Amino acid sequence: GTKRGLTFGKRGMGLEDEINAANDYYLADHLAVIHKKPTPVTIVKVDYPARSAAKITEAYFQKPSTTDYNGVYQGRYLDFDAKETKNKTVFPMKNIHEHQVQHLANVVSQGGIGFLLIKFTTLNQTYLYPAPELVAAWMQQEGRGSIQLKELVQQAYLVKASLNPSLDYLTAVDDYLADL
Amino acid sequence: GTKRGLTFGKRGMGLEDEINAANDYYLADHLAVIHKKPTPVTIVKVDYPARSAAKITEAYFQKPSTTDYNGVYQGRYLDFDAKETKNKTVFPMKNIHEHQVQHLANVVSQGGIGFLLIKFTTLNQTYLYPAPELVAAWMQQEGRGSIQLKELVQQAYLVKASLNPSLDYLTAVDDYLADL
Ligand SMILES: [Mg+2]
Ligand SMILES: [Mg+2]
Repeated sequence: GTKRGLTFGKRGMGLEDEINAANDYYLADHLAVIHKKPTPVTIVKVDYPARSAAKITEAYFQKPSTTDYNGVYQGRYLDFDAKETKNKTVFPMKNIHEHQVQHLANVVSQGGIGFLLIKFTTLNQTYLYPAPELVAAWMQQEGRGSIQLKELVQQAYLVKASLNPSLDYLTAVDDYLADL
Repeated sequence: GTKRGLTFGKRGMGLEDEINAANDYYLADHLAVIHKKPTPVTIVKVDYPARSAAKITEAYFQKPSTTDYNGVYQGRYLDFDAKETKNKTVFPMKNIHEHQVQHLANVVSQGGIGFLLIKFTTLNQTYLYPAPELVAAWMQQEGRGSIQLKELVQQAYLVKASLNPSLDYLTAVDDYLADL
């Protein structure tokens, strides 16, 4: 039936798909302007066939130097990355790269709102984890080990269940902004 | 001599190179966190050779749906695109795409700071042209024709000459913010 189809559909949706769907919704409803950055690639060779589109025939993936998402929400600069883990008790630090932590620290020092959206897929729970807490944990543990979920939930903001968009993460941003 | 070399070096620098150099300078000096977005490409085929990096063997350029640059400066969200023209008396509207105007209008309505950096290469002058003026001109002329330089300079902010970075466009942003 429809319900099962819907459930299956949602199960198949990765965190980035959910965020992209939320961003489309926010843009259409004039709630926020947030986009995913394109995947950075180094282009080496391009063919220009007559009468058709330029075709890239050799390119390589680059390491991203920033996070995947940024934009503006009620005059505030938002900047974040999406992380998924199957782990049920900890968030392993290896999920995040040092340059992303550095970038989020830079964002915060410029007065921007930085965070991770972390989905614990097994628990089906997504949290907004603020950049200042992430940076502190990273420095303390020198980028190793993991953050206990028990500790993380004390500092993070749960994205509450919603239907449309299915991941209404701006409500967690509101909760975070209210505490700043 | 050194001076001539420097001048030649600058002559060869396109507007985007100048902006990227300014952004590197701003990041290193903790003045702003502004990055160019990667060129969006649709990836069709990827080879995974043993023992070497994944190689993209078929991909196509996508039309960008936003502007090229965004980031945060003293808590403000900045969003802009770079445009160059050899024209000495007008800025032709065909230099800008409708989706970019739409995006900048969205940014402004969320309280962000949107603009174009327009370089008149023959005059060697670069202006910050605010998004609200651009959107008004675009609507009035239905995306056609051009904006007279005489009119543009009334609404725009000249990026004053500087040595390091060679295009210190944040000074024009400061002038614009002071008028808001
Ligand atoms: Mg990610
Ligand atoms: Mg451009």
